[in-house]
Amino acid sequence: MFITFEGMDGSGKSTQAQLFGEHLRARYGAENIVVTREPGGTAIGEQIREILHNMRNQEMAPLAEFLLYNAARAQLVAQVIRPALEQGKVVVSDRFGDSTLVYQGYGRKLDLEMVRNVINYATGGLKPDLTFYIDVKIEEGLARRANGHSRGEELNRMDTQTREFYERVRAGYETLLCENPVRWIRIDGTRSIEQVQFDLQERLDAFALFPNH
Amino acid sequence: MFITFEGMDGSGKSTQAQLFGEHLRARYGAENIVVTREPGGTAIGEQIREILHNMRNQEMAPLAEFLLYNAARAQLVAQVIRPALEQGKVVVSDRFGDSTLVYQGYGRKLDLEMVRNVINYATGGLKPDLTFYIDVKIEEGLARRANGHSRGEELNRMDTQTREFYERVRAGYETLLCENPVRWIRIDGTRSIEQVQFDLQERLDAFALFPNH
Repeated sequence: MFITFEGMDGSGKSTQAQLFGEHLRARYGAENIVVTREPGGTAIGEQIREILHNMRNQEMAPLAEFLLYNAARAQLVAQVIRPALEQGKVVVSDRFGDSTLVYQGYGRKLDLEMVRNVINYATGGLKPDLTFYIDVKIEEGLARRANGHSRGEELNRMDTQTREFYERVRAGYETLLCENPVRWIRIDGTRSIEQVQFDLQERLDAFALFPNH
Repeated sequence: MFITFEGMDGSGKSTQAQLFGEHLRARYGAENIVVTREPGGTAIGEQIREILHNMRNQEMAPLAEFLLYNAARAQLVAQVIRPALEQGKVVVSDRFGDSTLVYQGYGRKLDLEMVRNVINYATGGLKPDLTFYIDVKIEEGLARRANGHSRGEELNRMDTQTREFYERVRAGYETLLCENPVRWIRIDGTRSIEQVQFDLQERLDAFALFPNH
C-alpha cells in the first residue's frame, strides 16, 4: 500500500507524515514501513532538491523546475518506492506526483496534459492508493512558514512565490479532491498536531494494511 | 540559425564546436554568435551537469538521468538559446536533444516515443537547422577519452558505460542521419583537428548565415 501526504506549504503535512510513519512502525514493525519525501528521499534526489530549493536559482525556468521534480521522483520510485512495494511493505511519502500536478501544472500554468504525461513517465504509472490532504487556509500556511523561518527553519526558493500562485495551487488541490474522492481524504489541518495525528490514525483503521497482522 | 555538434564521446566534437564558434565570431562579429554546451550552459544547467557526471552517482536510474538532461536543456533553451535566436544571433551548441535521443533512447533503451515527447516538451519544439555529426569509430573515441583521462581530463559517470551501450549509441546516430539527411552532415572525425575544422568551415559557405553581411 502506497500512502501520500499532500497540502500547501505550512500545512504541517511533513510533521504529520513523520508521526504517521512512526505510528505505523510501532504498530506493524519498522521493517514493514518505508517513510520518504519529495523532492529527495535518495542521495541523487537530495542533490536535485538542493538545486530546486537553492535561493540563488531564482532564474529557474518553469519547465526546468518541472523536469527536475520528475527526475528526483523517477529516482525515488526506481530506488525506494517500487522495491519496497514489491516486498509487500507500506510506503508513506511526504508529497508525490500530485504536488507537481498542482504546483507546476496549476501553479505555474504549464500544460496539464504534458504535466500528467511526464509524471506518468517518471513514476511508470504508479499512483498512491490513499492520499491525505492536510487542509489549511493559505494565510495560515504562510504564517506558519514565516513563524518557522523566524525560528531558523530553511527559507527555500519555493517559499518565494506570489499570493496568486498559492491560490492557484490550492484551487488545484480542490480540483483533484473533487475528481477522485475515493483516493483523497481531506484532513482539517487547522487543529493541534496531536488532534490531526489522532484523526489520521483513526481513519487508518478503515484500511486493512496488513490483513494477516 | 541554430547549429549543433553531435558525436560519440572522444569524437572531438567539443573541440570542433569551440573552434567553429571562434571562426564565426571572427567572421561575423562576436556579438552575433552564441556558443554553448549540453548539459550545462547555464548556472542551473551546470549544477545539473555536476549531478549527471558525478562518479559517485552510479545508482542513477535511466529515467532520472533522462529527465535531468532534459531539465538542463529546458533551462538552456529558455535562458540562452531562444532569446539569442529571437535576437537574430547564430547559436552553436555542443550537443542538444539528439544526444538524449541517442544516449538515453537508443543507448539506455528507453521508450523512443516517450523520449521524443519529453525532448519536445523541454525544447518547446525547437530543432537545430544544421547538425554536424563528427564521426569516429567507437575504438578511436574510447582511446582518445582514455588518453585524455591519462592527461588529467575529467573522467565522468558517462565514461563508464559498456561496449554494447556505445554500439547502440553509434547505431542510433546512424539511424538519425538516415532519417534526416538534409539537416545532418557527417564529418570524418578521424583526421587532424585542423583538417576537420577546415572541412567544417568550408561547408559553412553553403549556408547564408547573415545574408546582409
